[in-house]
Amino acid sequence: MTRTTPAGTPLGDEFHVYDTTLRDGAQREGISYSVTDKLAVARLLDSLGVGFIEGGWPGALPKDTEFFHRAAEELDLRHAALVAFGSTRRAGVRVEEDPQVRALLDSQAPVVTLVAKSDLRHIERALRTDVAENCAMVADTVRLLVSEGRRVFLDAEHFFDGYAHDPDTALRVLEAAVGAGADVAVLCDTNGGQLPLELAETVGEVVARTGFRIGIHCQDDTACAVANSVAAVQAGATHVQCTANGYGERAGNADLFAVVGNLATKLDMPVLPEGGLAELTRVSHALAEIANLSPDTHQPYVGHSTFAHKAGLHASAIKVDPELYNHIDPAVVGNDMRVLVTEMAGRASLELKGAELGVDLASEPEAVTGAVRRVKELEARGWSFEAADASLELLLRRELAAVGGGEAVDAPFELESYRVVLDHRSDGLVVSEATVKVHVGGERVIATAEGNGPVNALDAALREALVPRLPWLQDVELADYKVRILTDASGTDAVTRVLVETRDGADEWTTVGVDGNIVEASWLALCDALAFKALRSDAVSARG
Amino acid sequence: MTRTTPAGTPLGDEFHVYDTTLRDGAQREGISYSVTDKLAVARLLDSLGVGFIEGGWPGALPKDTEFFHRAAEELDLRHAALVAFGSTRRAGVRVEEDPQVRALLDSQAPVVTLVAKSDLRHIERALRTDVAENCAMVADTVRLLVSEGRRVFLDAEHFFDGYAHDPDTALRVLEAAVGAGADVAVLCDTNGGQLPLELAETVGEVVARTGFRIGIHCQDDTACAVANSVAAVQAGATHVQCTANGYGERAGNADLFAVVGNLATKLDMPVLPEGGLAELTRVSHALAEIANLSPDTHQPYVGHSTFAHKAGLHASAIKVDPELYNHIDPAVVGNDMRVLVTEMAGRASLELKGAELGVDLASEPEAVTGAVRRVKELEARGWSFEAADASLELLLRRELAAVGGGEAVDAPFELESYRVVLDHRSDGLVVSEATVKVHVGGERVIATAEGNGPVNALDAALREALVPRLPWLQDVELADYKVRILTDASGTDAVTRVLVETRDGADEWTTVGVDGNIVEASWLALCDALAFKALRSDAVSARG
Repeated sequence: MTRTTPAGTPLGDEFHVYDTTLRDGAQREGISYSVTDKLAVARLLDSLGVGFIEGGWPGALPKDTEFFHRAAEELDLRHAALVAFGSTRRAGVRVEEDPQVRALLDSQAPVVTLVAKSDLRHIERALRTDVAENCAMVADTVRLLVSEGRRVFLDAEHFFDGYAHDPDTALRVLEAAVGAGADVAVLCDTNGGQLPLELAETVGEVVARTGFRIGIHCQDDTACAVANSVAAVQAGATHVQCTANGYGERAGNADLFAVVGNLATKLDMPVLPEGGLAELTRVSHALAEIANLSPDTHQPYVGHSTFAHKAGLHASAIKVDPELYNHIDPAVVGNDMRVLVTEMAGRASLELKGAELGVDLASEPEAVTGAVRRVKELEARGWSFEAADASLELLLRRELAAVGGGEAVDAPFELESYRVVLDHRSDGLVVSEATVKVHVGGERVIATAEGNGPVNALDAALREALVPRLPWLQDVELADYKVRILTDASGTDAVTRVLVETRDGADEWTTVGVDGNIVEASWLALCDALAFKALRSDAVSARG
Repeated sequence: MTRTTPAGTPLGDEFHVYDTTLRDGAQREGISYSVTDKLAVARLLDSLGVGFIEGGWPGALPKDTEFFHRAAEELDLRHAALVAFGSTRRAGVRVEEDPQVRALLDSQAPVVTLVAKSDLRHIERALRTDVAENCAMVADTVRLLVSEGRRVFLDAEHFFDGYAHDPDTALRVLEAAVGAGADVAVLCDTNGGQLPLELAETVGEVVARTGFRIGIHCQDDTACAVANSVAAVQAGATHVQCTANGYGERAGNADLFAVVGNLATKLDMPVLPEGGLAELTRVSHALAEIANLSPDTHQPYVGHSTFAHKAGLHASAIKVDPELYNHIDPAVVGNDMRVLVTEMAGRASLELKGAELGVDLASEPEAVTGAVRRVKELEARGWSFEAADASLELLLRRELAAVGGGEAVDAPFELESYRVVLDHRSDGLVVSEATVKVHVGGERVIATAEGNGPVNALDAALREALVPRLPWLQDVELADYKVRILTDASGTDAVTRVLVETRDGADEWTTVGVDGNIVEASWLALCDALAFKALRSDAVSARG
């Protein structure tokens, strides 16, 4: 079943990676693309090298009609063909007179995917027509579109449920489409209830019985959308419909990145043009950004944590033999291996982590001993460095400096004191105000600022004090802020762990602080964030 | 391959649902359970009815050693057997003298799962020993544990990669374990690189060649962990290892809820005791809460959006014929269908929820309208009532009171103002102090107290003011406190959601507060907590 085409050979029509992020993916609760967003998504998908981009449903959604209009003028796709999605003519209406069908032609998309019912129960109960008319609706619409020069694919909705209930009806619908000139009959697991072994059997049977070119479209309601898509390809499907990051209605669709990753790295199928595979991680994150969703850090192939190793058990072995512990080389899909530092931390994993962060500990065994002791001591008090690389790097550099192995690393100022006042006034207004007294560049500075909460006010006051004296702090801003209350088993007081994500124009880094008091914990994380910026900054010399 | 046992038949040993949330699941980046958390997780898993709960690695992690110690005294499991995880004796050491093996016995867990290498390359390159010694390590350790009355399972690490590379070595390791008395040989896809069709073939082959009882343990690096687990069961495995919500290292493990959902609803296997299936959604969300992770709203079977349908193509048909559009009835797994945009679902579920909380809304359609509007309005601002029944009950009772359907529900005092001062003094000491001005029982009271943080100080000051006047507040105390920062998609400022769990001697209840300011959000949740106590208390009459 595996295809081996020499690397670099341009992809032909032999296998279709068909993306429906902009149509079916947009059904996900919470996603709402503007037309400009849609154009940006299409460009990113094209840069990956997918064969088809389903852009929307012209005529049904005004935004989609506009998208196709602007796409015709503004999009210059290198790999992908643009696809318009729509339904067949309505029952009892002449196809030439159906405005929906007209809108598909007006979209100017070279390819049209028509959706049609292939489950007898849906034909009778939802569409309220009969099988003959349903097939005529399919055939008439395909024939018209083909005669107008369009390439046509058929999405056979609810195919698997329909085929299980009444295979003849399901197959008649496919025959109506292909007989009228459709190129691919796409079997859709619309309700997402399939499992791979059964689905592969059905796909194999349909390929054998019809001889048609078969496609697959899976939903993730059994958590098997990716597995089902791959199994369908192994059973003979040569067209696979996916969405970026698996976005879609309910549990979502088959994730494009996992499907492509599996086909390319497990079945040696060159489904993307050369260079495409190494773009998976970048494109996945960029598409999450446009959808305004946090990237899933644990997403197969492309997640930030997907090649991260925590277990102390394996740390020393991973150092020697990374390929024994990763199912693929992460660089193949544009991702990285990471080693997490945890309560299981040992010398080997800290050294490895140091190397990853650019801190060479190999020749400083004393610094490693000090760092292991310090990490364990802090972790026992609730600190966690797993998600706070910047704080860990500072800790390692400080241990290195302590044994004379590097320069000292300090915050770019010294604290004398701070005070935060929160007032819920009798008129109902809530006001947060912070005052800091700090020493910076040999000067004692007092600054006060307000904020929408205690940490925000403290951050504002600190900036007020520092930015005029340390101009390289100008672009630094708090990007994200996470809080975890740790209620300890042993009856002592709860402590608060704060993670602060900071960014400047170019970079992003995360620091951690822990204390019984949430504001003090936040303060510690803020100080590390600025110390880290100072470490990275050319402007370090500006320090006092 | 499907098993049909009459509903209600107690589950025997025929099939194992084996949970490793507390051991392998804890490898997920960002998860760090306290011992108390671990006990709570075990109780929830037991309430679901899983057969085995792997609690951790005693001897390797002090926290896990303590967990087993406390579990022996505090846990009273109805369904599950507790399992200790550990490795075999080390190479070249007598098993009786290996402290790791001793720690497994000392844990008092009735079942032990031993991990062993089954890939020749790992044996030689990571373990630096040979196949004969590796098998002796397995056999010696199994034999000792069995002779001490333990039931033993073997986790054959990297089995699938090992079997593909050198099947004889892989099988020799299984034989060493089963020959020495192990009950189940668990085939682990440790690197997570498998696809279902190939994996099912291997499992079938191993079952046929060995005749051993076979288990399966899958990681999700190809997005196929659930599919692989189910395919393995179809190929003859009768023991399946999963984690709640698929938590685990890298891309995670096979998700317990999807695996169980698939086995029960697609293959008719009664893998949980009666009533267990309907608990899936509740337990999934509660476990996310303990792990301090947002529940995945799109998670198969249990996600909040997993049976949600966007209005459009199908909306009216769904209303008439829901079974045509859902792969299962969501109630089977304790979930709900939601039709987005329409208000219908909101009304029905709020009425249902009201009945559950003892608030009869059936005869008050106006109160339901008001409550739906209020919940939607609050949810749009970041509130969530899923984990805060007490706040929801107050909301429903207030809406009922507004239309004259019940008594007014107020906090047992009125706030004039509060002020919190946080001082990080120049001597390094951090002090939190709060002052409240409240009206209670016709009296204006001013009270000041210190605490280890702003919320703690505020809580202390409020008690200082109220307890002398409302003696029924004496036993009320803050039991737990959770914070989540919501950085919303809509580009507005981040808001903070606080959940407060409060208890008196007899009862526990959870309330929620949301605000841009964490202290104000906490204050709102604290006020609801006291109002709820007032509502329940006989001493309500003591109010002013």
